[in-house]
Amino acid sequence: MSRFVYADNAATSKMRKEVLEAMIPFLSSSFGNPSSIYSIGRDAKKEIEKARKTIAECINASPEEIVFTSCGSESDNFAIRSSREKHKNKNHIITSKIEHHAVLNPIKNLQNVEVSYLSPDRFGVLNPDDLSKELKDDTFLVSIMTANNEIGTIEPIEEFSKICKKNSVLFHTDAVQAVGHIEIDVKKLGVDMLSASAHKFNGPKGIGFLYVKKGTNIPPFIRGGAQERNLRAGTENVSSIVGMAKALEISISEMDSVSIKLKNMQNRLVDKILKIDKTILTGHPSNRIPGSCSFCFLGIEGESILMNLDAVGICASSGSACTSGSLDPSHVLLSIGLSHEVAHGSLRLTLGYENTIDDVDYICESLVPVIDRLRVMSPIWEKC
Amino acid sequence: MSRFVYADNAATSKMRKEVLEAMIPFLSSSFGNPSSIYSIGRDAKKEIEKARKTIAECINASPEEIVFTSCGSESDNFAIRSSREKHKNKNHIITSKIEHHAVLNPIKNLQNVEVSYLSPDRFGVLNPDDLSKELKDDTFLVSIMTANNEIGTIEPIEEFSKICKKNSVLFHTDAVQAVGHIEIDVKKLGVDMLSASAHKFNGPKGIGFLYVKKGTNIPPFIRGGAQERNLRAGTENVSSIVGMAKALEISISEMDSVSIKLKNMQNRLVDKILKIDKTILTGHPSNRIPGSCSFCFLGIEGESILMNLDAVGICASSGSACTSGSLDPSHVLLSIGLSHEVAHGSLRLTLGYENTIDDVDYICESLVPVIDRLRVMSPIWEKC
Repeated sequence: MSRFVYADNAATSKMRKEVLEAMIPFLSSSFGNPSSIYSIGRDAKKEIEKARKTIAECINASPEEIVFTSCGSESDNFAIRSSREKHKNKNHIITSKIEHHAVLNPIKNLQNVEVSYLSPDRFGVLNPDDLSKELKDDTFLVSIMTANNEIGTIEPIEEFSKICKKNSVLFHTDAVQAVGHIEIDVKKLGVDMLSASAHKFNGPKGIGFLYVKKGTNIPPFIRGGAQERNLRAGTENVSSIVGMAKALEISISEMDSVSIKLKNMQNRLVDKILKIDKTILTGHPSNRIPGSCSFCFLGIEGESILMNLDAVGICASSGSACTSGSLDPSHVLLSIGLSHEVAHGSLRLTLGYENTIDDVDYICESLVPVIDRLRVMSPIWEKC
Repeated sequence: MSRFVYADNAATSKMRKEVLEAMIPFLSSSFGNPSSIYSIGRDAKKEIEKARKTIAECINASPEEIVFTSCGSESDNFAIRSSREKHKNKNHIITSKIEHHAVLNPIKNLQNVEVSYLSPDRFGVLNPDDLSKELKDDTFLVSIMTANNEIGTIEPIEEFSKICKKNSVLFHTDAVQAVGHIEIDVKKLGVDMLSASAHKFNGPKGIGFLYVKKGTNIPPFIRGGAQERNLRAGTENVSSIVGMAKALEISISEMDSVSIKLKNMQNRLVDKILKIDKTILTGHPSNRIPGSCSFCFLGIEGESILMNLDAVGICASSGSACTSGSLDPSHVLLSIGLSHEVAHGSLRLTLGYENTIDDVDYICESLVPVIDRLRVMSPIWEKC
């Protein structure tokens, strides 16, 4: 293999060296249980409270508003199931057609709950006016993602939360793709709950958090011990909590410079790739997560593109990693109005802080002949 | 501090060096998402499947019967909530008074479910005959722990599961304190579901598993992506899964020799400590987790003992770590018939493979003057 270019940072991202270094003590000598009263237990407790403070500061929250979870999916399930438990007498939820399955599936599974799904425009943007139209007296929860995991579009969360606040409806946002990548100020956003996952911002896998605004008072999702102020049972994952805080702290401190770099690379990548015949940029042309690029190439299958890119050392994806293995076209791409045929030819390239302009050029140089070759072999290309 | 003696292995245990070494690649260069189709994704997938096979072999299960979770508490909540979802038309659960709160609390929270609680004898042993008496046509789940976290008593799981099987009732066991410490053969035990947690057997915190017997067909607890064959959504915690498998593999391979060592140390510790006036051994005198010792010292508070032991470098606990901070006496100690006063004076010493006879002697030498001193200061000691 000539090179290795990782361009799938929305699926997962490489842990920073500083993050691993911060974690190591808690994977070796500092192994105390934070609930224990002896010194190594108290030290572990101190470290997780320090991490909680760091994370809170990164999103303009208070430390007591951060609940550690095991991942973004748990955070989403937690927000949804616990909101339902809090509001047993209301039976209507509003969400969108382009949410992650970690939001769609737990909502679908709720008993006796009617669900309204907002539709995006062709750029993947959801309309706050549509929310106003769908609200009922019976609505107890609105869940709209901050940024889409497949097409990168950023949603007008402030406007959604204003409408929810006015109508006294809980508002949750899945910000798994946004935290660490764009400014997240929970006060400015006005959300009641916000989900995040560390491995999306160069932190460890298996750790995330749910921001729960003071006064929201949702019941726990995982019950048992008194950890996380009775909101999430289970011995705290100390090393990963510390690692998540370190990763977020660095991401926030470098965000301005990294964003500029990512946007430049993104523009170059998009310009070059759109020169390929019958190629569509999916998602919003400008209002998207820095470094996140997604396309559809008419006449071919996304999976074939990925295998050809893998052969030359490029890691990319077709839609979300969580739905890989499924033969169905992406629900997101169908929702923004693409046909099954077009949606099947999707490619997502999500750049990270370690990528270079050279990587971008290598991706483009590699991609052009791959698309050409696949189209020559394609039985449907002639009809496109 | 003159010495450091860790004797709280039931709360959490120090990760083995080999476990950290096995994890490091997946916390650095091998960071792929197991759902991704390119090489570093496929490699990650291979590693978690290898880990699943190792873990399955350790408990005589098939790989497809192992579902990775984020901790023992999640495994317990998963087993309980999902059993309830599977059996919406039945409304009765049987459990015991001495279960961990990760079993008791999710059961208590179920809607429209009647719960019967089996009582232990004075050694903490639960009686299968009591289960037979409590079973109804309406019973859909029985959950009985394999070994108690506070007093170490091992329960007759095989007998419980035989009764459940005969009556076509799901049987779950919280084996968090047992896996890696005593032989666990799920086929011999005959259980339908079994919870485990890596940090209790010298693996990482933040990872566990639920064994789900083939054909049990419970729905997922955390919904979203298709990970874990649709049974547990969320990007897999690759490094910790690999670490858990390594930790369990070593624990099983060393179990025979470590058990003998732990039992010897346990006997020595119990013999010496029972020489202290008005001291009770709690739990079964012989049928207990190797290395697990628990006592009540009349006339004093467990917490004061812990602080005094901490001052001389000894880490111990009073009941379970998960309920620390609570002023209520242990529900386990009350259930085996101890009074509030006696239960308040509890001390749990749980030895691990790294402890030595010297540690045991140091604990005993340190403890005797601590108990004496506290009793002199105690307002209730004279009345004991």
